[in-house]
Amino acid sequence: MLYTDLEEILGKVRASLEADDLAGAVAAIEALRGPDQADLFNELDDETQAALLPRLDPEDSADILEELEDEDAARLVTALSPDEATRIIDEMEPDEVVDLLSELEPVHQEKFLAQLEDEAELRPLLLHPEDTAGGLMTSEYLALGRRMTAAEAVAALHTWKPDVEDVDEVYTIDRHGRLTGAITMRRLMTAAPDEILIDIADPEVVSIVAGADQEEAARVMARYDIDSLPVVDDEGRLLGIITIDDVIDVIEAETTEDFQRFGGGEPLDRPYLDSGVLAVVRKRIGWLLLLFLTESLTGSVLRHFEEEMAAVVSLAFFIPLLIGTGGNAGSQTTSTIIRALAVEDLARRGLWRPLLHELGVGLVLGGLMGITAYARALLWGTGTPVALTVAVAIFAIVVWANVLGSVLPIMAHRLKIDPTVVSGPAMSTLVDATGLFIYFTVAGLILAF
Amino acid sequence: MLYTDLEEILGKVRASLEADDLAGAVAAIEALRGPDQADLFNELDDETQAALLPRLDPEDSADILEELEDEDAARLVTALSPDEATRIIDEMEPDEVVDLLSELEPVHQEKFLAQLEDEAELRPLLLHPEDTAGGLMTSEYLALGRRMTAAEAVAALHTWKPDVEDVDEVYTIDRHGRLTGAITMRRLMTAAPDEILIDIADPEVVSIVAGADQEEAARVMARYDIDSLPVVDDEGRLLGIITIDDVIDVIEAETTEDFQRFGGGEPLDRPYLDSGVLAVVRKRIGWLLLLFLTESLTGSVLRHFEEEMAAVVSLAFFIPLLIGTGGNAGSQTTSTIIRALAVEDLARRGLWRPLLHELGVGLVLGGLMGITAYARALLWGTGTPVALTVAVAIFAIVVWANVLGSVLPIMAHRLKIDPTVVSGPAMSTLVDATGLFIYFTVAGLILAF
Repeated sequence: MLYTDLEEILGKVRASLEADDLAGAVAAIEALRGPDQADLFNELDDETQAALLPRLDPEDSADILEELEDEDAARLVTALSPDEATRIIDEMEPDEVVDLLSELEPVHQEKFLAQLEDEAELRPLLLHPEDTAGGLMTSEYLALGRRMTAAEAVAALHTWKPDVEDVDEVYTIDRHGRLTGAITMRRLMTAAPDEILIDIADPEVVSIVAGADQEEAARVMARYDIDSLPVVDDEGRLLGIITIDDVIDVIEAETTEDFQRFGGGEPLDRPYLDSGVLAVVRKRIGWLLLLFLTESLTGSVLRHFEEEMAAVVSLAFFIPLLIGTGGNAGSQTTSTIIRALAVEDLARRGLWRPLLHELGVGLVLGGLMGITAYARALLWGTGTPVALTVAVAIFAIVVWANVLGSVLPIMAHRLKIDPTVVSGPAMSTLVDATGLFIYFTVAGLILAF
Repeated sequence: MLYTDLEEILGKVRASLEADDLAGAVAAIEALRGPDQADLFNELDDETQAALLPRLDPEDSADILEELEDEDAARLVTALSPDEATRIIDEMEPDEVVDLLSELEPVHQEKFLAQLEDEAELRPLLLHPEDTAGGLMTSEYLALGRRMTAAEAVAALHTWKPDVEDVDEVYTIDRHGRLTGAITMRRLMTAAPDEILIDIADPEVVSIVAGADQEEAARVMARYDIDSLPVVDDEGRLLGIITIDDVIDVIEAETTEDFQRFGGGEPLDRPYLDSGVLAVVRKRIGWLLLLFLTESLTGSVLRHFEEEMAAVVSLAFFIPLLIGTGGNAGSQTTSTIIRALAVEDLARRGLWRPLLHELGVGLVLGGLMGITAYARALLWGTGTPVALTVAVAIFAIVVWANVLGSVLPIMAHRLKIDPTVVSGPAMSTLVDATGLFIYFTVAGLILAF
């Protein structure tokens, strides 16, 4: 059953709850998969969540806690009795437990940690900042001495954590704990029993240091098609692994942030529908005000050219059209460049190549738009001098917008600023004021004020 | 060695090539991983590529062809002798071979296909459209009768395609070939030899029908943390599997398309730096013209209010500021809504919730911006009536932009149009013309023309 049927199950659960039939609600929930159970839980109030969770199979409850937003999961856990809570947390994956514990007050954190089965395994994971490779890793991996035989390795797999099924590779380490190779399950299964691991392991295993940014980990895994990425310390000692499901979550979260920045707001901390009106306002008002103040430069430019406008009123009709087109051309450019910076490692190829590229694109687009604008102005019955002014101005503005649209994101990237900061609304606003200046300067030259 | 050292290797390869030392160039390339080899190949000209590829280890050559853009790989393959080409293609993964063959002329396609080892396996894959789950799947999976024992399954794994290491799961099927369950390698390895597969397989295996959109496949795999997703026909018969690496590529490609649409251009067919100036122009000019024509409505609105403008010239100073702020508020809203549609399945929750949410956000933001605009206008020495006009207009425009910014993407989504179509520049343009209308209407009411 996939998530499309959720509404129906939610109806059943609600009906059961109203009839005080907790067992019925539990049965309906347990028929779902983890992510769907979590979605359904999200629709219930806190009290109902706390009443239902301990009645579910602890493995299901653990899945739900893993899928909920960390903040919500932490709130839910503190509403349970300590015994109930630890019974469920013991079933969660180590990296998810760490994310959950990080949301708790230090006192609560310590209390839970002391009661958990895997305390010793979890403590080192808590040391890594959340947005690094170390913060993403889990301790559920199997590292074997590189001089073991295949038969010994298979025996170790039998005894090691029987509930962990999802292991694709085992790793070999030397006596200092340094990563030396990786062996896939298939290879291990088809090896002769007396083969030594060092002979069947792939020594070219890709790894990442714990302090690396989580986006870097995602990039490496995507680039090299890796399902689980070993994390090592500065001496190359194996600390944990990052699994592909966490990386997909990182990619999704980063994309959401990029989109929201791209639209001219700060990223929301929580899913949209869970964010209150004031939380959303807080993320947007800063940019809106900053852009307003920048945009008010347009007013200054217009006041500066007040006489010219009064002399030729029809010039004013074209203002939104000109600066709008400039903003659009700039937006088209930044969106392409920002994405190319993210996936094509554009910055490494130098500033000049994209700049020249966009200059070329801008000249062609500007020419085409200039011709269109000239025709449109004449159609409106505008006189030839003003039509010519509009055409030349739009040509210059489009070229300028394309140049600005390629240079600014690349410069931001070099200065280690997120390039989405100069995209979308910010780009339009920058082009608006400068575009007006270009327009009236061209008007001055052609109409000879 | 990771991709950061690529420039250095490229230098070595170039030096070897200049010294006519092909063997040296080959050795330098073979020390790299597949994706890095492909990046390096991209920097070489067609002739050099065709000269080097057959000299590399066929497995490396196959990796390179898999990583290159399909179009480039197809051009490269047709430049090789048929024998060289088939020797390399035989080492590629079936889904990648299909992508490559799809780029060839039907005649070439048939010629290559007839010579390939896996012809029988490849033909059915060619039948599925490229952007469906079927188009993404590979035939490298192992399906076993559900009544086999674990020992028989392990024996099958020994004999089945010894070069395929990267298998995480085997699937069980009934006598009609219908998918009945999945077994992880770890589970199979730790099973007693005489256990029957039906007893150890997970019957709740998630699958997808071949005709489903590739984005749907990506969504299901991301949601349920699945590393390989079985693809079935309408009767539930197992046809192939989709592996997670292909899904990450789909997600990356879709994000790039979204970004480019969001910026107001059509997605490029190829990586940015490989796209010629005219190719980029072609993808942008359509939208730029369409937005220009829409934006020229602003001119009509302004002409309509020509007398009002002539009477109170200072009204004109605020035009870019007002419509700019409206566009920004609209952009902030659409970017959030579009992302929420993608990851939170917002559409399912109905139109009203986001609309009311954004109405609330718009009222607060509009109020704050109104106050700011009033202060700014007075600071410029604008008279109170015009300052009041500006304040009320900006309030109304921000509220309107937030409403439009939430309703339009959701409506587009419902009409099965990509919601990014009404984002960024399109949104700004829509708000520009309507915003001007609001502005002059408010001016008419307050200044009583």
